[in-house]
Amino acid sequence: MEKITTAEATTLATAFAPSTTPLVGIIMGSESDFDIMLACEQQLEELGVSYERVIASAHRKPTVVQKWSTSAVDRGIRVIIAAAGKAAHLAGVVAAYTPLPVIAVPMKTSDLGGLDSLLSMVQMPTGVPVATVAINGAKNAAILATQILGTGNPEYLQKIVALKHKMENS
Amino acid sequence: MEKITTAEATTLATAFAPSTTPLVGIIMGSESDFDIMLACEQQLEELGVSYERVIASAHRKPTVVQKWSTSAVDRGIRVIIAAAGKAAHLAGVVAAYTPLPVIAVPMKTSDLGGLDSLLSMVQMPTGVPVATVAINGAKNAAILATQILGTGNPEYLQKIVALKHKMENS
Amino acid sequence: MEKITTAEATTLATAFAPSTTPLVGIIMGSESDFDIMLACEQQLEELGVSYERVIASAHRKPTVVQKWSTSAVDRGIRVIIAAAGKAAHLAGVVAAYTPLPVIAVPMKTSDLGGLDSLLSMVQMPTGVPVATVAINGAKNAAILATQILGTGNPEYLQKIVALKHKMENS
Amino acid sequence: MEKITTAEATTLATAFAPSTTPLVGIIMGSESDFDIMLACEQQLEELGVSYERVIASAHRKPTVVQKWSTSAVDRGIRVIIAAAGKAAHLAGVVAAYTPLPVIAVPMKTSDLGGLDSLLSMVQMPTGVPVATVAINGAKNAAILATQILGTGNPEYLQKIVALKHKMENS
Amino acid sequence: MEKITTAEATTLATAFAPSTTPLVGIIMGSESDFDIMLACEQQLEELGVSYERVIASAHRKPTVVQKWSTSAVDRGIRVIIAAAGKAAHLAGVVAAYTPLPVIAVPMKTSDLGGLDSLLSMVQMPTGVPVATVAINGAKNAAILATQILGTGNPEYLQKIVALKHKMENS
Amino acid sequence: MEKITTAEATTLATAFAPSTTPLVGIIMGSESDFDIMLACEQQLEELGVSYERVIASAHRKPTVVQKWSTSAVDRGIRVIIAAAGKAAHLAGVVAAYTPLPVIAVPMKTSDLGGLDSLLSMVQMPTGVPVATVAINGAKNAAILATQILGTGNPEYLQKIVALKHKMENS
Amino acid sequence: MEKITTAEATTLATAFAPSTTPLVGIIMGSESDFDIMLACEQQLEELGVSYERVIASAHRKPTVVQKWSTSAVDRGIRVIIAAAGKAAHLAGVVAAYTPLPVIAVPMKTSDLGGLDSLLSMVQMPTGVPVATVAINGAKNAAILATQILGTGNPEYLQKIVALKHKMENS
Amino acid sequence: MEKITTAEATTLATAFAPSTTPLVGIIMGSESDFDIMLACEQQLEELGVSYERVIASAHRKPTVVQKWSTSAVDRGIRVIIAAAGKAAHLAGVVAAYTPLPVIAVPMKTSDLGGLDSLLSMVQMPTGVPVATVAINGAKNAAILATQILGTGNPEYLQKIVALKHKMENS
Repeated sequence: MEKITTAEATTLATAFAPSTTPLVGIIMGSESDFDIMLACEQQLEELGVSYERVIASAHRKPTVVQKWSTSAVDRGIRVIIAAAGKAAHLAGVVAAYTPLPVIAVPMKTSDLGGLDSLLSMVQMPTGVPVATVAINGAKNAAILATQILGTGNPEYLQKIVALKHKMENS
Repeated sequence: MEKITTAEATTLATAFAPSTTPLVGIIMGSESDFDIMLACEQQLEELGVSYERVIASAHRKPTVVQKWSTSAVDRGIRVIIAAAGKAAHLAGVVAAYTPLPVIAVPMKTSDLGGLDSLLSMVQMPTGVPVATVAINGAKNAAILATQILGTGNPEYLQKIVALKHKMENS
Repeated sequence: MEKITTAEATTLATAFAPSTTPLVGIIMGSESDFDIMLACEQQLEELGVSYERVIASAHRKPTVVQKWSTSAVDRGIRVIIAAAGKAAHLAGVVAAYTPLPVIAVPMKTSDLGGLDSLLSMVQMPTGVPVATVAINGAKNAAILATQILGTGNPEYLQKIVALKHKMENS
Repeated sequence: MEKITTAEATTLATAFAPSTTPLVGIIMGSESDFDIMLACEQQLEELGVSYERVIASAHRKPTVVQKWSTSAVDRGIRVIIAAAGKAAHLAGVVAAYTPLPVIAVPMKTSDLGGLDSLLSMVQMPTGVPVATVAINGAKNAAILATQILGTGNPEYLQKIVALKHKMENS
Repeated sequence: MEKITTAEATTLATAFAPSTTPLVGIIMGSESDFDIMLACEQQLEELGVSYERVIASAHRKPTVVQKWSTSAVDRGIRVIIAAAGKAAHLAGVVAAYTPLPVIAVPMKTSDLGGLDSLLSMVQMPTGVPVATVAINGAKNAAILATQILGTGNPEYLQKIVALKHKMENS
Repeated sequence: MEKITTAEATTLATAFAPSTTPLVGIIMGSESDFDIMLACEQQLEELGVSYERVIASAHRKPTVVQKWSTSAVDRGIRVIIAAAGKAAHLAGVVAAYTPLPVIAVPMKTSDLGGLDSLLSMVQMPTGVPVATVAINGAKNAAILATQILGTGNPEYLQKIVALKHKMENS
Repeated sequence: MEKITTAEATTLATAFAPSTTPLVGIIMGSESDFDIMLACEQQLEELGVSYERVIASAHRKPTVVQKWSTSAVDRGIRVIIAAAGKAAHLAGVVAAYTPLPVIAVPMKTSDLGGLDSLLSMVQMPTGVPVATVAINGAKNAAILATQILGTGNPEYLQKIVALKHKMENS
Repeated sequence: MEKITTAEATTLATAFAPSTTPLVGIIMGSESDFDIMLACEQQLEELGVSYERVIASAHRKPTVVQKWSTSAVDRGIRVIIAAAGKAAHLAGVVAAYTPLPVIAVPMKTSDLGGLDSLLSMVQMPTGVPVATVAINGAKNAAILATQILGTGNPEYLQKIVALKHKMENS
């Protein structure tokens, strides 16, 4: 995978502004997706998982998306969450450029209810999967990201065990 | 989560018969799913990821599914792949009983093409996500499982990097 | 089917709190389903059919659902009504654990209108049926439960005859 | 509900030809449905449940369907299974004329896969439910009918318990 | 087709109360359909076509529907318009009992948008067609009814010619 | 509506070649539709209804379709049957140019099963209805055409009465 | 393609009233479509592309649509944008009469969300394509029209380059 | 848009191997798409339009796709045709990188019939349209590409006029 220049890296750093090195990278296709994806960030915070957020359309800002995706692994990201609507290519485009697991959150749409977003995300062709959650499943994306981190880090596994215990007893 | 007895554990061990301690547990709802899921196992083998396989319907063998799911984490499983068709509850039921990430593979159906399996898997309610791949996406489930293992183990990350490199240059 | 302990039974008794031994067990996946399912309870009351209600998600409280389902027949329940939305596994999970007939009420969803709930319920695989009624068909679930009880008790059959007579002449 | 004349009853008796008084009445809209519904009859026979079969379209033979439905309860039928395809009105029409529980089996169609049959059956309006099973779910209709009979007769309940036990251990 | 008695005919006359012998019979499954079907009646009035209206569910009032349908031809009705929603059997049930052409108006539904009503109406099996118009196509049902009457009466043909002329020049 | 010239009329006469003045005009969008529509012609022949057939795509031969539609009423046609597939505009285009009732037969398609043909036909906007029958409902189109002719001619009404009588007693 | 008379041309000129010779012809099926299509016109103005607008239903004003389409190429139009809803035949009808590229904008519908409009537009049969954009994709239709003009005129190509540059850097 | 190096350009030239400078660039996501897209190339040849073909998945070979798309305008390509199936991102990804008009051909899929491909292509978000034709509409993509070239070159316009004339008179 092609390197990005120092200048570009600085731009990226400014753009994404993680206060600490985050483990989860959240990317969404439009500012309007943030209303839904706020619940994802809140859930990650409750679970104590660091994240960064970038808003960039796969179609309107392809180079930003490509560079962010290509550089993710070297910047310390371990799991990516991509939210988009309609012909939702964002998760697939990101997955094309990174070896990291990519969680896809299909956004509900005003005309087809999100069936378009869902099929555009989940029906990925052989070789490049994305891990699709429910339409508008922002909170579940956060939990799934934490479960994924938990496969390598018992601390996150314990957080999921605790979360499930809490749900069982609520 | 409730413990299973030694006797039950032995039964499970016999039933699932992993030759080594596997990292991925594959569960499918019916023997007929195996024609599709063979590609998943082959891909895991190519990527050098150990797995075990169990065939058990969430509806016809709920206790087996529950015990297999509940015991998975302690038996060393790190990622689960669940394949089922029609009203495909298997992934959700497994996810209810384990803190591990669960990948769902919706099986194509002869009447609705797999739209039923897909919606039954992907539309999980808040709190218990499953990571859904494409209809009949057996091979992609294996790649996603390896990506997930790669978040904690650079060896698997490298295998995905190599796989992507190979695809880019094929 | 595995027994539940006395302590657990007491917990169940407290949780479900039937004032008399009810014939119909209503289970719903979320408190938000109650707005719709109220009409089911009102119809059962009009028809003079006793019921108990429990709110427990198949995914967030699998053990509660399993124990409630497994113990239903011994507690005197004769018909179960299960309401859930999205990837609505509740009816299927209950049906896996009980020999009783299970009526499924798919909840309308805000994105796909309830098509997801419907397919997740009705498309049950061979061996474990559920009796699915219309999306949000809460009242019809109550009537169907009474019809089912009527196959063994002429009093309930007469109540349906009277209901149909009233509809024909309203 | 209006009486049928003796002559008509004789015609019905000849038409439906039950060797013993059956508990389950199976009605299907077309001879072509029998290929699928054979599995329903075989399952009823395995479970030891008596049945009668009539083939009559709700649209082409409305009077036959009406009389068969209206007379079912007095002839000793306790549960009805109705199978039809496309704009599948049969179950709803039967349910309009009888207080008995009606199980609907949507037939797979060559153009829309059975989605038309399914929606035409399951989306019944308030007051007149039908208990819909999966597309082509002939065997499950038989099991559900037996579960329904089991609410009033422990013998049938035991048969379902045995069936579930067999599935769990197969 | 079976005759209705004088007493029943009187009841029908009272129930349907046509001030003159109407040519079009409008039947709808529920009072709530009238909000939509008002436009049908207004269009018929603009076109000078007489009609009667009855509100009767095929499922809740099957005998009323059957008698109204069976008697329609003798009462002078020439075209029937049937409006219903969800598992919309009304048009098909009416068409089963009358040789007259039946126009079906699928009502929009709150969950599936009317796709259920549409498929339940249009997918009629061989032998018994209904003439389906658009979801909520009340006004078009009136125009189609007038076109049908125009095949035998030039006056109605001219009214359609005039209507089309007006649309072309509006 | 604009007149066609004598020369054009001759061309039309040659093209459509009715041996007698037909009452029903059948138009189909493609020669491949004829396999299905043969059943329509056979049914019309059984019912003794004269017809003419033309094969002309609304998109590839718009002028032919327009002239055939515009001239239909003057040539003695009373009902039109239009069969087409995919984005099936044929019935709507014909209906735009003629005051006659137009029956639409949506052709099954190899990708979407005919849902595209169906929606393209049935969802006509206000002012210009078409009378849609089932996907591939060729035979029913013939019966509906005869029912429509029967509103003005008792001979055709009797033929439908006889057909229904035959179905009821077959 | 048939000529239109001078009188008709004057009528057309008055009807369409282009202040300069426009390159893009926008046609919409109903005045209610204008709320959505305003964004199309605004985008064309931002891009400096001249256009004319006509509102004419393919079904209610077929002759206007035919003449407008047939005359478009000679009046200097280079690209056509057609917006319509439900059984949206407008784009196809226009494309039947003109050799120009036709962009189709499916309008969102209140019952099926625009799936009907979309399928009615995009599924055009062999020989007569239309270039379909997203449901309610008014702005994108304008951009696509400009891209098409850009294939022959570098000025428009540059405008698209600038637009994309602006999006990438916004 | 970023430049590609000389070495890369040579690689591209070898990879795409246009014998003359082509006007149309055809890109497809998989070799299996070629069975369908052959008809596109044959139609372009009949119309005398030069083209190049590249097979490259947006997901498996993102860098190839990006470079091919970015360089297209400078290599003389004027219109792009992109064919892909399932979560068909190819057309959108290409459109993100080029100012040229991009025609999208959704491939039929074995499970959902191509509805997934269609929605993944046509529902592009604001700013980046693609011109979608019918599922498997390979031939129409060629005609549309020629129509687009015809807006700047009367020779291609005449070829479309001739094609339409031939269809009208075949």
